Parts: sequence; structure tokens; C-alpha cells
Amino acid sequence: MKSGKEKTKVLVIGGGTGTFTILSGLKKYPQLQLSVIVSMMDDGGSNRVIRDEFGLLPTSDIRQCIVALSEEKPGDLLRKLFTYRYNAGTGIAGMTFGNLFMAALADIYKDQELAIQKTCEFLDVAGDIIPVTFDKTHLVARYENGKQVMGEYVIDEPNEELAKYRIVELEVFPESTPNPKALRQILDSDFIIFGPGDLYTSILPNVLIPGIAKAVKNSKAKKIFVANLMTKYGQTDNFGTSDFLHELEKYVGCGVIDYVLVNKSKDFPSGILERYKLEKAKPVVDDLKDTKKLCVLRYDFISNEVYEKPKSDRLKRSLIRHDPDKLAGAILSIIG
Amino acid sequence: MKSGKEKTKVLVIGGGTGTFTILSGLKKYPQLQLSVIVSMMDDGGSNRVIRDEFGLLPTSDIRQCIVALSEEKPGDLLRKLFTYRYNAGTGIAGMTFGNLFMAALADIYKDQELAIQKTCEFLDVAGDIIPVTFDKTHLVARYENGKQVMGEYVIDEPNEELAKYRIVELEVFPESTPNPKALRQILDSDFIIFGPGDLYTSILPNVLIPGIAKAVKNSKAKKIFVANLMTKYGQTDNFGTSDFLHELEKYVGCGVIDYVLVNKSKDFPSGILERYKLEKAKPVVDDLKDTKKLCVLRYDFISNEVYEKPKSDRLKRSLIRHDPDKLAGAILSIIG
Repeated sequence: MKSGKEKTKVLVIGGGTGTFTILSGLKKYPQLQLSVIVSMMDDGGSNRVIRDEFGLLPTSDIRQCIVALSEEKPGDLLRKLFTYRYNAGTGIAGMTFGNLFMAALADIYKDQELAIQKTCEFLDVAGDIIPVTFDKTHLVARYENGKQVMGEYVIDEPNEELAKYRIVELEVFPESTPNPKALRQILDSDFIIFGPGDLYTSILPNVLIPGIAKAVKNSKAKKIFVANLMTKYGQTDNFGTSDFLHELEKYVGCGVIDYVLVNKSKDFPSGILERYKLEKAKPVVDDLKDTKKLCVLRYDFISNEVYEKPKSDRLKRSLIRHDPDKLAGAILSIIG
Repeated sequence: MKSGKEKTKVLVIGGGTGTFTILSGLKKYPQLQLSVIVSMMDDGGSNRVIRDEFGLLPTSDIRQCIVALSEEKPGDLLRKLFTYRYNAGTGIAGMTFGNLFMAALADIYKDQELAIQKTCEFLDVAGDIIPVTFDKTHLVARYENGKQVMGEYVIDEPNEELAKYRIVELEVFPESTPNPKALRQILDSDFIIFGPGDLYTSILPNVLIPGIAKAVKNSKAKKIFVANLMTKYGQTDNFGTSDFLHELEKYVGCGVIDYVLVNKSKDFPSGILERYKLEKAKPVVDDLKDTKKLCVLRYDFISNEVYEKPKSDRLKRSLIRHDPDKLAGAILSIIG
């Protein structure tokens, strides 16, 4: 940790609920200056409407970061609204208030970047939320069997035929340019954290944007990877922690990661593994070894809360999550 | 006007853009304590979705009052959003942000009255916005030819066949109970203002709720009627100011009105009367006479701004409006 008044610059790279979790934990430490680079390739649920019907960039991941980093005040109406998903209304049910809020502002200002910035100001966001690109891009995955599919949503919830095969190559289409602010933040950070989150649909979509991986390699920051708790059907079936790390380093650069945070607890909430089994998912096997270059840290990271999604949410969601406080504590032990 | 610190209690009864206009003008006078009783029978456009799909009471009229009475701050994001209507999104285009905001809160609190109250607090509303009833009601009109129709929207924009006939009876279905707060406010006010606004679809729907007309008659308040600028096709064709007044008093009680505010200017914005002619509407002829009981005050009330509605707004709107400041000035001359 730095001395005096200078804060330690911590950058999270991801998107999705895992990023919400880690930011919620880290924001309790005022000695950290937080920023987050967010993937812009989501195209399921509420984001599909935002992309296809409003012609905007997807904002669900940004929305989650805003809520995580916004100041909590007693009786705070707007923060409560930002986590709300509509249950009624043709075309409205399933949409999140936060996405509709930002879509309205993007139309009022005729500038989505400004709309995001104004939203952050409005919700007293302590930290910098940085879209990885402002280009409209799609995720493309090539599978072992040679088949290629486009769209984050279809990769996240692949059909049964596709789910039999591993993803062998992930790309972004069309070619895109990185947000210059993202490159600067990567180079300027003291610590860069990947995850927790879905490897192929939340973390790697950031790294695939040209220039990002190179900036990560060139950054003096220590790089931390938060290994996943559970495998995911059709994406990371039978993956061990080493598979997750190798796939990440395949795109970000071999040997780039300095620390891996691994869950060592087997104490899952009652009945949860049976529910995961129905979704063909299981706890990630810890098969990583320390090396001279890699430090593996093992803690109990499991949250006792089981996430039950509302009916209006059309997407699959993780049932268990990392505990925000346990995760932040582990990261602080690295920061020192 | 009252002496000392006690404010003059002014109550507006109406709904729609006319009410927005008068409240916007009156709120500049800190010596007034404003409240407004709002009709809850609107069922067109955004309100149809709120009623039929969300199962809530209509909130467009309330939304307009909130914007009118909310404190204007420089760069105020939320006030700007509350006047925003979506241009894109299946099922979303045409909806107002304000209605979606209140619908989300009604679901979060499971209580629409509380949701409205919280919204008012959130937008620093200076004044009391009082729904005339919390019952789900519909407006029913019987025409000269004996035909009856139900729905504010169909009465507001009647088909050609129906538009030939005058409305001979207006009712509310099913039977409803007044908001007790509305009754109290009527009895407790110093001045009660009807209009400006559509007679059959904005003003009278309030008076039709059982108990409201009786409370108005019993109130010690001076009652002011703001006469309309223009006739309305299929509703008030060929009406003079006296017809408007007589129709209002037919429902609220004969001789109840003390003052009528009439526009005396012929200085309409260029080309506007031709546009109205296409909609079969014309300036209201001033045929009212002062009596011992009735004071008719004539001013120039015409606003120079011509209202051009956005494409996403599916309803017919007035092109010209009362000028808020001219109207407020005339009312202050009565209040003294």
C-alpha cells in the first residue's frame, strides 16, 4: 500500500455480476482508487433491446458497476430503482430501469458516453467506469468442431449441439478500437484484477479489443486473477483452475498473471450443488501449483447467500457468488 | 392576500397541459400555497399501458403536475427526464420516462399512492398533488343521439359519426369514492381554480367523483374558471365562453363560479388559426356578461410559443396555450 495520501489504483476488468460483487467489496476501502473496464458485447435480454431497438451500446454491465460504486444513502430511491427490473408491460417486462434511464439520457444528450457520465455523477459513483470500446461489436466463438457463432448471448447459453464442444477461438467482430481511457487506466494502475466472472462472455471480451492485452502486458501493475467457483455448461465444462488461467493467458499473454485467488472451501450452501448438477455444472477443481512467477492464494470465498433471480429476468444467472467482503479482504492482503 | 406569514391557499382542479401551464405560472409566487386535484380517468397513450398492462392508476396528469411544481435547478437531470418521451423500443416508444419511473416505484413499494408521494419528495415538489380518487374508473359520455361511449380517450378523440353530436351527460363508471384529502383541500382553500383545460376530459372528470361538487359548493373559497382559448372538435364545437361556464356549472352547481378569466386578444401566432381550422376548431367567442354574482375579467392570455408535439406522442395536443405568466398575473390580481 502506498504511504501518505496517495491512493492505491485498483482496476477491475470484467463485466456482469462478478464485477458487481468485487466492486461492492472493494469500495469499502477508502484507501483504494477504483476503476473498472467493462465489456460492451452483451446482447441478451434488456441489452438486446438497447442494442437492436435503440441503436445504442449495451449498458447492463455498466449499470451493475454504477450500482456497486454508487454511494449508499438511507432510503435512496434511485439506487433502488437502478436494480429494478420491470415485471409488466409488453416490451417493457424484463427491461431494467437503469437501462431505460440511460437510454433516455442518451437520446436527450444525443451522446451515450455523456449519458453514462451524467448517470455516474447523478448516482454519486465513487470510481471510474470505463467502457472498453465505444464501437458496436459482437463476440464470435469458434468451437472444436469448426463451427463459428456470433453473439454473446448464444455463446453464454449455447444449444445442446454446440455445448458438446470447447471454444477454441474467441474474436470480436467487426474490428474495433479501444477506448483510449481504458488504455491509460491499464498503464496507470497499481493492481489489475480479472474477474470473478464468466471467462468467455465477461472477462475475455475486454481483452480481445485491440491494444488492451498489450497495455496489460506493458503495465507495471500486479495482475490478479480471481478463479471461478463453478464450471459453466457449454463453456467451461470440466475446467480446473489451471484451465481458466491458461485460457485467460492465451489471450492476455503467457505469464502475465502474478496472483490467482482460489476458493478452498467446500462448504457450499445446502442443496446448491444438486441444483447446479441439473445445469451440468460443478465446483472448479483446484489444480494450480505455485511457481516462481505465480502466487496462488487459497481462501474461503463462498457467499452464504443464494441468488434467486426474479421471474422477469430472462437470462441464466449464477446461484452462488463470491462473498464481496471475503474477496476484498484477500485482495487487500495482496495490496498490503 | 393574507397578511403576515400565512400563505394564500390556492387549489387548481384539472389535469393535462392546461394545469401544467397554470401551475408553472403560479409557482413563481412564494406567497401562495399551491395544491392541485388531478383527474384519474386518462386512458390514452402512455396511460393505457399504465392502466391495462401494469394494472395501475393513470399517472400522466400527475407527472405533468410534478414537473410543473418541482424545483428547477441548473442541469437538473431528473426534471429533464420527467418530460422525456421515448422514441424507440417496441412497447416503449411513446411511453414517458415519468410514467415508467412511477410504475417501477409502485411495484417496488407495492403501493401507488406511496410511489407518487416518494416521487414528489424526490423531485422537490413544492405543493400538494392530490389524485381525485384512487379507484380505477372510466369516463362515460352520452351524446345527443342517445349513444353512450366509455373511455376518456374515445371521448377526447371521437370518431366522425360521434363528433357530430354534443355530449349531454358525462358520468364516471364504476361508482367511486373521492380521495378524502381532495375533499379536505377543497374545504380548506382560499381560491379554487378550474382550468384551463379540456372541459369534458380534464376538468369535469374531477367534479364527477361523488362528494367533490358538494365540497366545492360548501367551500368558502372564491372560485375561478379559466375559459378556453379554442373550441375542440367533437366536444365543444361552436361553444362560446358562456357555454363552457354553463356546462361546468351544470356539474359543479349553478352560480358556483365567482370569476371567469377570458382571453381578449386576437393576436394569435401567425398561421395558427389556419392549422386549427384543419382540425375544425376556432377561437372561443366571448359572449359572457358580468352579473352581480359573476365577475368576468378579460386579458391577453395568448402564449407566443406554438407547441409542436414530438412524433412519438400519439395523442392530439393543443397548438397554443395560455401564457403561464400572464395567467398567473391575472389570478394574482384577483387574490389581491
